[in-house]
Amino acid sequence: MAGYFITFEGGEGAGKTSILQTISTRLIQEGYNVIITREPGGIEIAEKIRQIILDPDHTAMDGRTEALLYAAARRQHLVEKVIPALNEGKIVLCDRFIDSSLAYQGYARGLGVEEVFQINEFAIEGCMPDMTLFFDIEPEEGLKRIAANKDREQNRLDLEQIDFHNKVHEAYKQLLNRFPDRIYRIDASPQMEVVAASAYNKVISFMDEKA
Amino acid sequence: MAGYFITFEGGEGAGKTSILQTISTRLIQEGYNVIITREPGGIEIAEKIRQIILDPDHTAMDGRTEALLYAAARRQHLVEKVIPALNEGKIVLCDRFIDSSLAYQGYARGLGVEEVFQINEFAIEGCMPDMTLFFDIEPEEGLKRIAANKDREQNRLDLEQIDFHNKVHEAYKQLLNRFPDRIYRIDASPQMEVVAASAYNKVISFMDEKA
Repeated sequence: MAGYFITFEGGEGAGKTSILQTISTRLIQEGYNVIITREPGGIEIAEKIRQIILDPDHTAMDGRTEALLYAAARRQHLVEKVIPALNEGKIVLCDRFIDSSLAYQGYARGLGVEEVFQINEFAIEGCMPDMTLFFDIEPEEGLKRIAANKDREQNRLDLEQIDFHNKVHEAYKQLLNRFPDRIYRIDASPQMEVVAASAYNKVISFMDEKA
Repeated sequence: MAGYFITFEGGEGAGKTSILQTISTRLIQEGYNVIITREPGGIEIAEKIRQIILDPDHTAMDGRTEALLYAAARRQHLVEKVIPALNEGKIVLCDRFIDSSLAYQGYARGLGVEEVFQINEFAIEGCMPDMTLFFDIEPEEGLKRIAANKDREQNRLDLEQIDFHNKVHEAYKQLLNRFPDRIYRIDASPQMEVVAASAYNKVISFMDEKA
């Protein structure tokens, strides 16, 4: 039996990482076989690639270099971790996937959504998510949440201008229109518990539908 | 005035790296403005990517991950080093470029020449070499030369089976047929001095033609 590949997407500070943890805990309590991951995912090669991408010293990094590195890390993580788990029938909850590249590199950095999609198609060979949750929050609100969270270290992407984050947000809304059967919008502006419950219900109803 | 972008290609042990040095020295003596480089080229981001690719511990690296990493390193090196030098009117002699990816990843690893070409087109945005020298040697002979050269440390690619090197050789011959206006074959079986003289003459006559 093949599992489900569910990805969590959204701009900075949308809360998707914490919510992913909450949903995972609830699903496991309900008896589901779940793994949670994010793109380097403890895969040695992919972790090393991510170190290069997120190094704040790399201000000279070209946008196309960055997009190719994300695609490379994605490929290795997919092959070594996601696909084996799906083949074992697990539910894979993944923090960011192809839509992040389309939104951040394709749209916000202006590389072109179609071109970034093409290099990612090379990377994933048709292994698209079964379901994607887009945690929708206004960029200014998201950045305020990050600023208030002292445990979270800021990385190079957090330091981008507000204009960039607005473009990312716009891109996600376009992706939502483009992939209406795959991407579900979750209003991420309420309290975390409310957002998590809403996302959990979406996941459950999706799996019930497919079962 | 724009310079010339000349790439050196071939299987392992074809001698291209030494010959590139020899040709560079002669061109500089003749008064040409030359830089020599190879793909990471001292560019910090690209060097770090190359370290990931060539690490002998990374036996689990997927072929598509490798192809994307080569394309990423290529992009950064091109943008930071090659294009600025060409814009200054320099002759850029580059040890390996896009044809290496087409031969090694596209053909020998079986990823598909067209698919690897596509991700490289994303990386180079039309900046193809003006001229490519293919140093043609039988794979067994090339590997013997490497084994005899104690100064050169073996890397992960040198350790591949002979069958792989034969495929790379076959791929270069196909590329020669596909790009007859760009790629020139140099017989790399004679003594180094003979091969270097032959390659030097090709470079000079190419530039005379274009001048």
